[in-house]
Amino acid sequence: MAWRTHDLESPKKGFKLIVGVPDVGLVGPIAASFLIKSLNLKLIAYFDSDDMPPLLLFHEAKPLLPVRVYGSGELCVFISEIAISPRVMPSLARAIIDWATKKGASGIIALSGIPVPNRIEIQNPKVYGAAVKPEDREFLKKSGIELLKEGFMSGVHALVLKECLVKEISGIALLAEAYMNYPDPGAAASLVSTLGSLFGIDVDVSPLKEQEEEIRIKLRELMKRTVETMRQAGKEYEYTLPAMYA
Amino acid sequence: MAWRTHDLESPKKGFKLIVGVPDVGLVGPIAASFLIKSLNLKLIAYFDSDDMPPLLLFHEAKPLLPVRVYGSGELCVFISEIAISPRVMPSLARAIIDWATKKGASGIIALSGIPVPNRIEIQNPKVYGAAVKPEDREFLKKSGIELLKEGFMSGVHALVLKECLVKEISGIALLAEAYMNYPDPGAAASLVSTLGSLFGIDVDVSPLKEQEEEIRIKLRELMKRTVETMRQAGKEYEYTLPAMYA
Amino acid sequence: MAWRTHDLESPKKGFKLIVGVPDVGLVGPIAASFLIKSLNLKLIAYFDSDDMPPLLLFHEAKPLLPVRVYGSGELCVFISEIAISPRVMPSLARAIIDWATKKGASGIIALSGIPVPNRIEIQNPKVYGAAVKPEDREFLKKSGIELLKEGFMSGVHALVLKECLVKEISGIALLAEAYMNYPDPGAAASLVSTLGSLFGIDVDVSPLKEQEEEIRIKLRELMKRTVETMRQAGKEYEYTLPAMYA
Amino acid sequence: MAWRTHDLESPKKGFKLIVGVPDVGLVGPIAASFLIKSLNLKLIAYFDSDDMPPLLLFHEAKPLLPVRVYGSGELCVFISEIAISPRVMPSLARAIIDWATKKGASGIIALSGIPVPNRIEIQNPKVYGAAVKPEDREFLKKSGIELLKEGFMSGVHALVLKECLVKEISGIALLAEAYMNYPDPGAAASLVSTLGSLFGIDVDVSPLKEQEEEIRIKLRELMKRTVETMRQAGKEYEYTLPAMYA
Amino acid sequence: MAWRTHDLESPKKGFKLIVGVPDVGLVGPIAASFLIKSLNLKLIAYFDSDDMPPLLLFHEAKPLLPVRVYGSGELCVFISEIAISPRVMPSLARAIIDWATKKGASGIIALSGIPVPNRIEIQNPKVYGAAVKPEDREFLKKSGIELLKEGFMSGVHALVLKECLVKEISGIALLAEAYMNYPDPGAAASLVSTLGSLFGIDVDVSPLKEQEEEIRIKLRELMKRTVETMRQAGKEYEYTLPAMYA
Repeated sequence: MAWRTHDLESPKKGFKLIVGVPDVGLVGPIAASFLIKSLNLKLIAYFDSDDMPPLLLFHEAKPLLPVRVYGSGELCVFISEIAISPRVMPSLARAIIDWATKKGASGIIALSGIPVPNRIEIQNPKVYGAAVKPEDREFLKKSGIELLKEGFMSGVHALVLKECLVKEISGIALLAEAYMNYPDPGAAASLVSTLGSLFGIDVDVSPLKEQEEEIRIKLRELMKRTVETMRQAGKEYEYTLPAMYA
Repeated sequence: MAWRTHDLESPKKGFKLIVGVPDVGLVGPIAASFLIKSLNLKLIAYFDSDDMPPLLLFHEAKPLLPVRVYGSGELCVFISEIAISPRVMPSLARAIIDWATKKGASGIIALSGIPVPNRIEIQNPKVYGAAVKPEDREFLKKSGIELLKEGFMSGVHALVLKECLVKEISGIALLAEAYMNYPDPGAAASLVSTLGSLFGIDVDVSPLKEQEEEIRIKLRELMKRTVETMRQAGKEYEYTLPAMYA
Repeated sequence: MAWRTHDLESPKKGFKLIVGVPDVGLVGPIAASFLIKSLNLKLIAYFDSDDMPPLLLFHEAKPLLPVRVYGSGELCVFISEIAISPRVMPSLARAIIDWATKKGASGIIALSGIPVPNRIEIQNPKVYGAAVKPEDREFLKKSGIELLKEGFMSGVHALVLKECLVKEISGIALLAEAYMNYPDPGAAASLVSTLGSLFGIDVDVSPLKEQEEEIRIKLRELMKRTVETMRQAGKEYEYTLPAMYA
Repeated sequence: MAWRTHDLESPKKGFKLIVGVPDVGLVGPIAASFLIKSLNLKLIAYFDSDDMPPLLLFHEAKPLLPVRVYGSGELCVFISEIAISPRVMPSLARAIIDWATKKGASGIIALSGIPVPNRIEIQNPKVYGAAVKPEDREFLKKSGIELLKEGFMSGVHALVLKECLVKEISGIALLAEAYMNYPDPGAAASLVSTLGSLFGIDVDVSPLKEQEEEIRIKLRELMKRTVETMRQAGKEYEYTLPAMYA
Repeated sequence: MAWRTHDLESPKKGFKLIVGVPDVGLVGPIAASFLIKSLNLKLIAYFDSDDMPPLLLFHEAKPLLPVRVYGSGELCVFISEIAISPRVMPSLARAIIDWATKKGASGIIALSGIPVPNRIEIQNPKVYGAAVKPEDREFLKKSGIELLKEGFMSGVHALVLKECLVKEISGIALLAEAYMNYPDPGAAASLVSTLGSLFGIDVDVSPLKEQEEEIRIKLRELMKRTVETMRQAGKEYEYTLPAMYA
């Protein structure tokens, strides 16, 4: 379950790392990918493990590992283009935080979705926040982001926050209302807009909404495999309250 | 199967550690959680393992690991808000006893339930006791607690006592009559009352009984997952007598 | 698959170790338990492993590990009150022989059963013998015990003899005609009588026969679990002849 | 998952290594085998692992390991005559690249197929290319080979390119349009022709086409087993676009 | 998957080791056992592993490990009386060759069968040969043994030859036409006769043929278990040709 990292370039000290890994509605990777393309970020690192399926990607004829980091200035984006099995989630979360710490990150922002049954009736999916440090929670609240108050969070973004908590690093999660089992570019658009207003990133999200149907079709296989991983990851706990606060 | 502990604060030397882990009727975590809230105990340590599902909790918007210890003065409470698979039970029991020993605990009290078929007809579930040391058994008897005489005990509380036995530490188990497969706040109330009279802890258990239906609904998922772990843990032995005393 | 031993007291050098582990008709643990009670043997050691189910026993309100050794003078009895899965059989057999050797045992006597289809018609189940050393085989024959001549033996008692063979220790197996899938106190009585006449142990076996039905009911769960382990342990080989002597 | 290599002879420094491992239409091993026979290459190394099935080959009565390397002058060919399970793919890919690097290879060319639904209507299967280094992509384009632009590649050839990418070695993949689940000598012929024109290897491929039906029947079992491995290797991702470029 | 060996006596330097392990028609162990009995060979070593089923054998009331070596003068015979699972085949093959090399063997002869559909019509099953070294192939041909020319060989005997190939030891396989799924003493008789004429071993094989039906019944269980292992061992490859020679 060991992960290897291959650095191509070093990010700027004090950078923020946005993390988008397949989960509810694939909103993490959709938003991460959109940011990378819109902001023209450069590929700076690969993550690799023998426990991943034997896959290589091609983009504009160039080979790419499916799990990698892009960056420019003080913004870096971690993206996985393949589903992560629950078995390797803990080691991946730790590898991400180890890499970020070693490279001098000032904070982590993990993206994901919250499944809502009436998603079809929602025009602008709301974004909820969660944060490890009190000052980050304060910052989110002041910026108008409602905080997740009680309950479970499951997946790589949950483990990323857990590592931040244990290692006392600034860690934020942003979760958009989303379809659970359908790729949801609209929810990803909400995440990107929120990132924009929180961190002053200027990106026009309208293309995400325009290509909704197209994206949905193209991501069928990734969604299918992600659904399987969510089933094994204790996602069902998310719809219940912890014993202590029941 | 290794467990990591993260200490936030040190308990007071000579403290007693109450252990509530999901099992019969979830009485352990329900009672543990009620004690933590009623006595306003402080979070003092996390337990973590890569063999646990990828979950993080939130309470009042603050992130929490699902397995942790609270304490104040000479009372500490260990609680797990997620089911423990039989595969990791031995290492968890050992991690609990190792942590308690290192921190200077004077004794362990593990909480659980004894399933009774006629639970529905019982107003005040009776609490049975078990103890590793003769003086603790004497203390329980004098306090009016009937001792478990013959039979098997299965689960994390059984392994916690086993570690106490092998390492010659004071270990007590308190087991309330309970529903096996339904969250049982009434049985948890009996445990809390018993703890109160045994150790002079002053807590009003009436809220536990009033919120019975509410708690039952909220803990559905945890109960469901706990039932699965009990099936794998040799719980069936509990309803038989050991060969030697047959 | 490692086993830990916890010694409470040391046996007398030159002691004989009787081994009773769940197998055909549970005759091993039934006979072992009867000897321990009849001869009033003292608990002297525990055997423990993380690969065993998470169980603790209680007897007269005292906690006990399910796998342990009793002894007095030159007689020790090893008993397991739970079924042993084939996966841990080799390490257990080795742990038994290592412990016995370290403590200065002069010989091992493993108890088990031979399933016979017409058991119901047999009043006094016959006891067969097997031994690693020629002098032990001679002793058995002289004492009127018919030796097992050709065939396979499967289970912990087979592996215990194997370790004796490889390490050149005196090892004997006594096998009573028994029901395969029903607890068989009558067969256990035959074993105890045989032990009595072979080693001058004076025990009245009539209680075993009188409590037959009672014992059978109490050991249902242990029998059920033992049947599963026998199915995985290559027991079927026992009803065939080895190729070499076919 | 360790691989052992047994060298019989050393290849010439600066050699190119062609890799043919069972995958889509078995085009890799069919082309590799045809090259070895046509160019009369010599056996120079074996690859072996305990995770492979217990098989030995015979050719002209001489025993051969199923995974091996042939070579002459500056051309070496790696061939596996048995299906590779996804579990051992990463270690095999790394073993190939480690061996090639140690022996002084100047580049790797991995052969495989791209399944096309209308294969039956195609007379001359087209060959697509992929390359790790820009100069190799340029070379392929100049030679009239269309590059694979967007998408996933799955299997040993994908992992071989990944290792080349990470270790900055020249790595090329050539992929012929092929039947997915039928051995496809016609597609293999296209690969051999392409290798011929790219690297000046002079081989007449007409025998491959003439023996098409014969080869298909003989390779049934290898194809059957390869289909199973492809199902587990995330091949389905290949028919979708990565999230980032959707 | 480690194997332990226990030596009782040392074979004579330069000895030949005949290997009979359960496979097609059980011809290996049947022939091995017949040789041991006919030539009155002495038990000289045991092979043991925790990955084998928990079995011990008895012959003439003496305990025996199921995997062992017999010998006298320059002839040794390795026999396994239980089926070998594919998972432990590689380590067993290596343990055999390591033991043989350490003891100074001059060559290995592995026995097995080749399943033929019309076995019932064959009076005298033909014996095919295979050998690692050219001089051994020459010897077989001169002695009138037809060599296996093209194809796969699967099982412990295949791996034994593979180890001989890799370590440059003289290794021969003799394979008799046989029933795949029925014990085949007739085929074993052919093997023994061939061994006789090749190495000047004088044995009358008529008892093998006379006890055919008896042996078949006695070896039912071993055959049943062997069939299962063959199914997992890639035996199906044997009925196809390698890609390279298709």
